[in-house]
Amino acid sequence: MRRRLRAGMVGGGPGAFIGPVHRQALALTGQIDLVAGAFSSDPGRGRELGLEIGLTPERSYPSWEAMLVAEQRLAADQRIDLVIVVTPNHLHYPVARAFSEAGFHVVCDKPLVHTSVQGEDLRRVVEAAGTLFAVTYNYTGYPMVRQARDMIQGGRLGTVRRSVVQYHQGWLATGLERQGNKQAAWRTDPARSGIAGAMGDIGSHAVNLLTTVTGLRLEALCADLHTFVPGRPLDDDASVLLRFSGGARGVLTASQIATGLENDLSLQVFGSEGSLAWRQEEPNRLVFWPADGPQQLLTRGSPHLSPSALAASRLPTGHPEGFLGAFSNIYRGVAEALFARQEGRAAIPEIAQFPDLMDGLRGVRMIEDTVRSAHSREKWTSASVGGPSV
Amino acid sequence: MRRRLRAGMVGGGPGAFIGPVHRQALALTGQIDLVAGAFSSDPGRGRELGLEIGLTPERSYPSWEAMLVAEQRLAADQRIDLVIVVTPNHLHYPVARAFSEAGFHVVCDKPLVHTSVQGEDLRRVVEAAGTLFAVTYNYTGYPMVRQARDMIQGGRLGTVRRSVVQYHQGWLATGLERQGNKQAAWRTDPARSGIAGAMGDIGSHAVNLLTTVTGLRLEALCADLHTFVPGRPLDDDASVLLRFSGGARGVLTASQIATGLENDLSLQVFGSEGSLAWRQEEPNRLVFWPADGPQQLLTRGSPHLSPSALAASRLPTGHPEGFLGAFSNIYRGVAEALFARQEGRAAIPEIAQFPDLMDGLRGVRMIEDTVRSAHSREKWTSASVGGPSV
Amino acid sequence: MRRRLRAGMVGGGPGAFIGPVHRQALALTGQIDLVAGAFSSDPGRGRELGLEIGLTPERSYPSWEAMLVAEQRLAADQRIDLVIVVTPNHLHYPVARAFSEAGFHVVCDKPLVHTSVQGEDLRRVVEAAGTLFAVTYNYTGYPMVRQARDMIQGGRLGTVRRSVVQYHQGWLATGLERQGNKQAAWRTDPARSGIAGAMGDIGSHAVNLLTTVTGLRLEALCADLHTFVPGRPLDDDASVLLRFSGGARGVLTASQIATGLENDLSLQVFGSEGSLAWRQEEPNRLVFWPADGPQQLLTRGSPHLSPSALAASRLPTGHPEGFLGAFSNIYRGVAEALFARQEGRAAIPEIAQFPDLMDGLRGVRMIEDTVRSAHSREKWTSASVGGPSV
Amino acid sequence: MRRRLRAGMVGGGPGAFIGPVHRQALALTGQIDLVAGAFSSDPGRGRELGLEIGLTPERSYPSWEAMLVAEQRLAADQRIDLVIVVTPNHLHYPVARAFSEAGFHVVCDKPLVHTSVQGEDLRRVVEAAGTLFAVTYNYTGYPMVRQARDMIQGGRLGTVRRSVVQYHQGWLATGLERQGNKQAAWRTDPARSGIAGAMGDIGSHAVNLLTTVTGLRLEALCADLHTFVPGRPLDDDASVLLRFSGGARGVLTASQIATGLENDLSLQVFGSEGSLAWRQEEPNRLVFWPADGPQQLLTRGSPHLSPSALAASRLPTGHPEGFLGAFSNIYRGVAEALFARQEGRAAIPEIAQFPDLMDGLRGVRMIEDTVRSAHSREKWTSASVGGPSV
Repeated sequence: MRRRLRAGMVGGGPGAFIGPVHRQALALTGQIDLVAGAFSSDPGRGRELGLEIGLTPERSYPSWEAMLVAEQRLAADQRIDLVIVVTPNHLHYPVARAFSEAGFHVVCDKPLVHTSVQGEDLRRVVEAAGTLFAVTYNYTGYPMVRQARDMIQGGRLGTVRRSVVQYHQGWLATGLERQGNKQAAWRTDPARSGIAGAMGDIGSHAVNLLTTVTGLRLEALCADLHTFVPGRPLDDDASVLLRFSGGARGVLTASQIATGLENDLSLQVFGSEGSLAWRQEEPNRLVFWPADGPQQLLTRGSPHLSPSALAASRLPTGHPEGFLGAFSNIYRGVAEALFARQEGRAAIPEIAQFPDLMDGLRGVRMIEDTVRSAHSREKWTSASVGGPSV
Repeated sequence: MRRRLRAGMVGGGPGAFIGPVHRQALALTGQIDLVAGAFSSDPGRGRELGLEIGLTPERSYPSWEAMLVAEQRLAADQRIDLVIVVTPNHLHYPVARAFSEAGFHVVCDKPLVHTSVQGEDLRRVVEAAGTLFAVTYNYTGYPMVRQARDMIQGGRLGTVRRSVVQYHQGWLATGLERQGNKQAAWRTDPARSGIAGAMGDIGSHAVNLLTTVTGLRLEALCADLHTFVPGRPLDDDASVLLRFSGGARGVLTASQIATGLENDLSLQVFGSEGSLAWRQEEPNRLVFWPADGPQQLLTRGSPHLSPSALAASRLPTGHPEGFLGAFSNIYRGVAEALFARQEGRAAIPEIAQFPDLMDGLRGVRMIEDTVRSAHSREKWTSASVGGPSV
Repeated sequence: MRRRLRAGMVGGGPGAFIGPVHRQALALTGQIDLVAGAFSSDPGRGRELGLEIGLTPERSYPSWEAMLVAEQRLAADQRIDLVIVVTPNHLHYPVARAFSEAGFHVVCDKPLVHTSVQGEDLRRVVEAAGTLFAVTYNYTGYPMVRQARDMIQGGRLGTVRRSVVQYHQGWLATGLERQGNKQAAWRTDPARSGIAGAMGDIGSHAVNLLTTVTGLRLEALCADLHTFVPGRPLDDDASVLLRFSGGARGVLTASQIATGLENDLSLQVFGSEGSLAWRQEEPNRLVFWPADGPQQLLTRGSPHLSPSALAASRLPTGHPEGFLGAFSNIYRGVAEALFARQEGRAAIPEIAQFPDLMDGLRGVRMIEDTVRSAHSREKWTSASVGGPSV
Repeated sequence: MRRRLRAGMVGGGPGAFIGPVHRQALALTGQIDLVAGAFSSDPGRGRELGLEIGLTPERSYPSWEAMLVAEQRLAADQRIDLVIVVTPNHLHYPVARAFSEAGFHVVCDKPLVHTSVQGEDLRRVVEAAGTLFAVTYNYTGYPMVRQARDMIQGGRLGTVRRSVVQYHQGWLATGLERQGNKQAAWRTDPARSGIAGAMGDIGSHAVNLLTTVTGLRLEALCADLHTFVPGRPLDDDASVLLRFSGGARGVLTASQIATGLENDLSLQVFGSEGSLAWRQEEPNRLVFWPADGPQQLLTRGSPHLSPSALAASRLPTGHPEGFLGAFSNIYRGVAEALFARQEGRAAIPEIAQFPDLMDGLRGVRMIEDTVRSAHSREKWTSASVGGPSV
């Protein structure tokens, strides 16, 4: 009997969007138990949530610092294996750093940290600790995203020439942050969100999706960031031209003022031998245009798919999987990597996949590059980011 | 702190499709722990699975009978609250009956039992025991199915006139049952599956969906059942004309030889004031045609939806939910109903909805009526089934 | 220089739906000029329309009888080659009969005539005259419908097992015929429309589409016809189970009370080696599920299509063709067949395809069989119709 | 009886794509007869085509110059009213100029001319002649495009904030111009096509669509043009950031190397009160997201649409209209404008809408601006183009 992993969570308290998502994604794995938490900056509310979801009182901690101290003191077979950081962005750095340094594995929400300086420091800490670090760029957990990546790596598209990624949401089309919406409030506050708004919150997902799927390495970019809602201190709309090593071109748009749109993340990739299109709101399908035959609709779970795409699938074709399944696949990847590490074996590569610290760091650099470009009168700003790791 | 419920499972061993579905659906609730199981008719394989998924050795039972005896002996605060019956169909009746009689709540897969005689007996047993009984007609767990039902109940369609339900799958288009496929083998075997094939396996889902959403009461039907794959003893293709009380008309088709189709369950309802369409493979959307305005696309999680539809939703709009979410909603309904019962509350939340024994019994009657009609030269066969309960 | 053909039209006056459709379809051919017409039972209004669309006063006839007499007297190189009958249904028979007998080729709207007795008589007349006779079952003029037919004939689906055809419209969901709508008025009047309502008006299209595409021969049927709108003397809703020679099964539904639906004609065909789906409202695409590979989306105009499908196409892929293009293809077929006849050619081009008198007669028989079945208490009524000719 | 207009055509000979399109669009109007033509630079082939499509030998001219001379000599009631210029781009200027100067109305294909200097000269000539001049930016002829424009003008979207237009084709993904394809050959040849490739051929359509629908006035742009197919002297891929007066933002992409894509022109417009999306390959639908209600699907021909959208429609809803219908609407617009002019009417009907010389000139300027920006290291290049006229 394989033992299950123990996790603790920092953030994700009452009113949070992403906390319950992580908890359900954990539950879906059947491999990781949530046994500890410091869910809120308000100790009372955090504890209440902990009890409500079945934690013991002593492991419903009043603060992440208390949790760090207490968990370190526990016996190895009691102590959490990993900590999950789902606070507003500004706390990612101190929390992730402290837990990594103490030898805990970390799963951290995106964007990783506020600055690449923080990111590089975190990288050094994690490398020294030898711990595992995952960043929940969850959209790459979708089976059909992995299928797209594998088809491109396998040469089915020939040379990738052009890629268009769009991430359009409408929920910030009005000044929601001034109407008591906590999600909106911290996301539009530079102190908690960082130097970018839409670009940081969803644009970083978009660029992670694009580079992960295409394998392209960004070389230069040209950004136009704009704020449409008066009084908002961060961008709510971003348009970016992209140039990649080898000559491929791309366009990224990320907007949170696209009235009526829900979570419309889509990717198109055009190659010399074929093209692909995927849309997050219809995640079980992948459109493939081979150069020499009719358009194909590939569906999750069907034979013909790559081993990674099949491994990321839970149900037969036609039984739709969704956002939680994709999110949970990140955790399954982490669990598989940790089990392999514990058992001293090589991890099963088709499952042990997750965006890592380098992906997180590239996301931070991309945000910095984009903001720099937005302030520049030069057309092209060199990109400091590299290629994908997943 | 509300305590979590404890469940035991009968069936769903290695190679089963529906066992892992139930287990993931349970996990997603965050309300029910699987603590006991008799997963397989092969005691060794069943025990192995139990250990693999974290059960203790003593509660990985060699048979359902052993589980029944042992669990009854446990203290009330250890004993399972409910048993989940996910065996091939022929075992539903003895297992569900025995556990109900012993005072356990039951969640049973569909179709409920082989005959309405069994069903009526089971009904008496359950009524005498005063236990809760749910049948996993899981498709009614989709939020947008509940929205459709609520719109019709609320009069948004005026008088329902016509309804078309289609359930098309292609996986049995060849004689898969003779190629070692266990799922195909028992589903095409009358001894284990019952008197109907496609009609029992998926047609019963279709009729449950139609009657639950429309609230219509079936009055008469006219069925054409056919077997396309040579040597198969049960129907793999069903077409049924439907007449409902009040004059509404309908058509049901259920086919497992629809080559290439995956799990294509769809429902159209036409009323005097509007129409609706829903498709299981795109479950987050519901098309609504009001008589006096443009077509609308309603999406899961958006405001404008009914309280039940919103309660059945876990994520914001645009973050697709799928089959497991809908399935889990049945369990959330069961859990909430049990909590209300334990706490002596009359008021139960919107989420406490699930198909019950009467739905299961109506499904069995519908299968019997359909087979009777298929053998009749009369056009219309009176239906012995009634309306929906959810 | 090939000469153009000359056509005369009977019916299709002011307020008609189908008259302008035929005229635009003619114009699109570039092969047939409309030079004569008796457009209305009101001679003044008919003449007015004739002048408006550019006919000479002398060939804007006050009645079809006058047109018949006058055109016969004209020199062969002035006289119309063909007459187009687009009156309400009850006039199809006398007009088509008289012009056929006089040696004119005829293009007649559907359903052909009111009774199969009339149809058989018309058949004898036309055979004696040796003239050409087309019936505008226009939906078979769509390129992707011809592609579907050709794929099935070429064996790409293996044995056809099951076919579902739906034709859903909502425009007669209320008693429009009592609100001054001329289209609704004659279509719901047995004296002008015949013995069936929805079944005759659109159900006959559906059965023609199904039999043309599948090549199946109807053997027996079981119909449920219903009238939902009070006071309407003809059915507005039809559901029919179908059995074909060789064992294939089918379902046809035709409804004009499907609130909000526009012109939703769709066809699904399931075979042992593959399946197809086509929808009239998205006519440039055909979905193909091969048994052994991913779903394909075939698009009008692309290579890979059959010669007939390509010949029926006017524009490159991605430049949508619509209803008028398909309609015009019927006329192109007629024109090419007449040119071949005039030139004494045996070989006729791929485009020379159109539904003929036998298709029209089969449609009439199907309507009669359906009405007979609707009144029968027997489940199955033998079909008197045969297979398709196009 | 209103007389019909007479048209002559220059270009559009054997092998041309756009010639037959214009001829079918003319025929669909029922208002304009094609009576003269100089179809090819090869006089013999041009004459052959003229005879084939029913022109008299004397009006099948060997050259456009011969046609100009001869038509001027004809009596006013014989002479063509308008000339249609469908040659490769480099001939637009001399032909359109000469015919305009001689007092003929002109319908000219896009892009109008090679340079804005030519465009300004042409503008002076046309203004002096007082003739009508239309440019076939045909995509604005679609009813649902006019609906989108009218909704935005009517304030249904509030303030337009962001617009994304994509025009993706795949047909030039390989070096087709070196394989005998005439269409590809002249489009990739600067001498015949002008200074831009994809940007001129389809990008100019995209910008016309965007500005016509949104009413926005372009202020500055930032372009990245690229050539993917080796040896091709013009761009085959364009990405452009757009800034409009008043602060709106946009992105335009035009690519002809999008392998497998057909004619995928799409437009999204996001406003403060609602959003719209339209796709040319599904032209009968327009998606509308009001800020305060569910997504709506508006369909061509339905009530609720604007007068212009309804006037541009030929068929009831559900009977798909396509590319030719939209194209023909440009000609219907021209015909109605000419009729109004001939009849001295100020009031012109809703259908009298077409892109004019100013739209053509703006297209030329946009191409020049884009190429200038592509060569610039500055991020923003001021736009010399203005707003839309249709």
